[in-house]
Amino acid sequence: MSRRGSVITLTTDFGNADPWVGIMKGVIAGINPDAAVIDLTHGISPQNIREAAFVLLVGTPFFPKGTVHVAVVDPGVGGDRRALAVETPDCLLVGPDNGVLSWAFRGVEGAVVREIREAGYIREPVSSTFHGRDVFAPAAAHLSRGVRIGALGPPVADPVILEFPRTTKDGRTIRGEVLYIDRFGNLMTNIRPDDRQGVREVVIGNTTIRGLSAYYGEGGDGQAIALVGSTDFLEIAVNRGSAAERLGARVGDEVRVSL
Amino acid sequence: MSRRGSVITLTTDFGNADPWVGIMKGVIAGINPDAAVIDLTHGISPQNIREAAFVLLVGTPFFPKGTVHVAVVDPGVGGDRRALAVETPDCLLVGPDNGVLSWAFRGVEGAVVREIREAGYIREPVSSTFHGRDVFAPAAAHLSRGVRIGALGPPVADPVILEFPRTTKDGRTIRGEVLYIDRFGNLMTNIRPDDRQGVREVVIGNTTIRGLSAYYGEGGDGQAIALVGSTDFLEIAVNRGSAAERLGARVGDEVRVSL
Amino acid sequence: MSRRGSVITLTTDFGNADPWVGIMKGVIAGINPDAAVIDLTHGISPQNIREAAFVLLVGTPFFPKGTVHVAVVDPGVGGDRRALAVETPDCLLVGPDNGVLSWAFRGVEGAVVREIREAGYIREPVSSTFHGRDVFAPAAAHLSRGVRIGALGPPVADPVILEFPRTTKDGRTIRGEVLYIDRFGNLMTNIRPDDRQGVREVVIGNTTIRGLSAYYGEGGDGQAIALVGSTDFLEIAVNRGSAAERLGARVGDEVRVSL
Repeated sequence: MSRRGSVITLTTDFGNADPWVGIMKGVIAGINPDAAVIDLTHGISPQNIREAAFVLLVGTPFFPKGTVHVAVVDPGVGGDRRALAVETPDCLLVGPDNGVLSWAFRGVEGAVVREIREAGYIREPVSSTFHGRDVFAPAAAHLSRGVRIGALGPPVADPVILEFPRTTKDGRTIRGEVLYIDRFGNLMTNIRPDDRQGVREVVIGNTTIRGLSAYYGEGGDGQAIALVGSTDFLEIAVNRGSAAERLGARVGDEVRVSL
Repeated sequence: MSRRGSVITLTTDFGNADPWVGIMKGVIAGINPDAAVIDLTHGISPQNIREAAFVLLVGTPFFPKGTVHVAVVDPGVGGDRRALAVETPDCLLVGPDNGVLSWAFRGVEGAVVREIREAGYIREPVSSTFHGRDVFAPAAAHLSRGVRIGALGPPVADPVILEFPRTTKDGRTIRGEVLYIDRFGNLMTNIRPDDRQGVREVVIGNTTIRGLSAYYGEGGDGQAIALVGSTDFLEIAVNRGSAAERLGARVGDEVRVSL
Repeated sequence: MSRRGSVITLTTDFGNADPWVGIMKGVIAGINPDAAVIDLTHGISPQNIREAAFVLLVGTPFFPKGTVHVAVVDPGVGGDRRALAVETPDCLLVGPDNGVLSWAFRGVEGAVVREIREAGYIREPVSSTFHGRDVFAPAAAHLSRGVRIGALGPPVADPVILEFPRTTKDGRTIRGEVLYIDRFGNLMTNIRPDDRQGVREVVIGNTTIRGLSAYYGEGGDGQAIALVGSTDFLEIAVNRGSAAERLGARVGDEVRVSL
């Protein structure tokens, strides 16, 4: 049942300075030497489940069908939180039952959620501090070889679902918030493209941006602009600069769109 | 026409904290699952085209013939700058037409430059902010499968060529500059090995270094030395320390060699 | 003699901002395109041989049998220190003869140590500053293809062995030290699990921790705990926080266990 060329992605808060990510890859190589392992990112802020959930939400659609996505942001490791494997029509997801996977499968028709519990697919002895190595990497490697999700453990009816921050609409004003800030200081919001028709102004803090730009370079150097970014969310950017720095913005800050 | 084991390298200013690099690899895996993708670096300073051009210049010679090198340092993304694919006798290069590729192909006999424009080799719809994902990764993946560069689009007669900083010689003095500073604080200059015969002194700021060393350890701890580095350029280093810190040096600083 | 799917790991102090790691991978791809190269870490503090030795000690056991582990933390590069290849019953090790490999093979029965010297397995000309590229990557790539270690050069009877910090026992008190601090600020010590029976208190600086916890989440938020970590060493952690920061701890700090 081997699937040559199958892809496993890793998303963690392990950073790039320690050997933990490499060790997970060693465990995977021991189970499925043919898997191609791709780092989605290891730069999630320590224990920031929402940040990782966002990364999976925007990243998973660009991988081949059947890719196994592993997320390890796991402050509850060793306690009684469950370990999950999820199958959707497009991909497989593996990680702790703390909501980190939930934005990538909530609302997806036909999503199947299982607990990872069967001994044959786990590394023994299981440590109490590193399930990335002992539970999630082995389960993902087995799935990438074609093991069926049902073999890993029993169905889970009530996985933890992280609430996705909603936008609200009040007359001609949509209110949303900053969801994610990237390395360039671009601010990604939860405001969707179908809200953008006839955007008159975008307001964040005491900055007002008139209308939407088509691309970064439309703004003069250092000028804040709003545009629909590559993730299909409304984004606030500063041409050749950091919007986060320039506007003093943080994740969670309110963004208002006037139509 | 599949070429098993073909290599694609990535050089970007995306850093390691965001999912953008992983997403590019997902797109590549969807087109050519057999490509081996190697990170040359994602630590280019944001929008620093010259730094990426230097990395390609010193990095590309060490990869197998036929490797596809992708560079995405792209402040003009979404505007009217062209997307380029270049073929030299040794490698293929893919990136924006802003000079980032130019040090790796200028002066190379037989280099062919094409615009990436044909719809079949681009991901639709093309976003206005992430051509790494929508244009450069797909084009590179297709090239790595054996698609001919001519299929991607029309020839480009006037690609942007970044001027390479020249050294000047005045009597017994060669003047050059610091081109690149690495993690160790080693200063790499634009002064070439054929200039090094009979080097008497190397001067940077108010530091004078006598003669060339053969290797880092020749200097006492904390002492500045000059040597011909692994990139064949004259390098200034501090044994078990950072020359950048110790000498307060920056990219662009003048370096003088007395013969 | 090709071994498909053979694994090579890299451990360096090169960081992720420069192209040096990518260049090593290019050299490996040119010699063995089928090798799977895994980064163990490139975040070793510059020239910190002990840190890399620890990473190899805790990381190598989780890779498939026959994996080739390359370590390049090499302040003596270009001088007269030897280049080593080591074979144990489980793995191969490649790196400079400065002790960086030694914790991964000292005391391992049947370990064979050879100098890397034969011209056919080295990249010519050998630079005086980058043996990762010119000596260690090529040797590892050849070993991963099935070249026998004996072909690389003569036996080495006296490789540099780094002293592993010992614990001492005085009455009911074991004294050890902090060996490694990871991204989360967890403090890993040299105190082994067989010392942990009946642990009454763990003391570091002016902090006293009562007994051992089973997992991180057992502590209240911000509370220091001690537990046996995933590396089988006694570890000091702070639930949802950094023990290093909270306790002001550093590598080398004394840790006392009262039984």
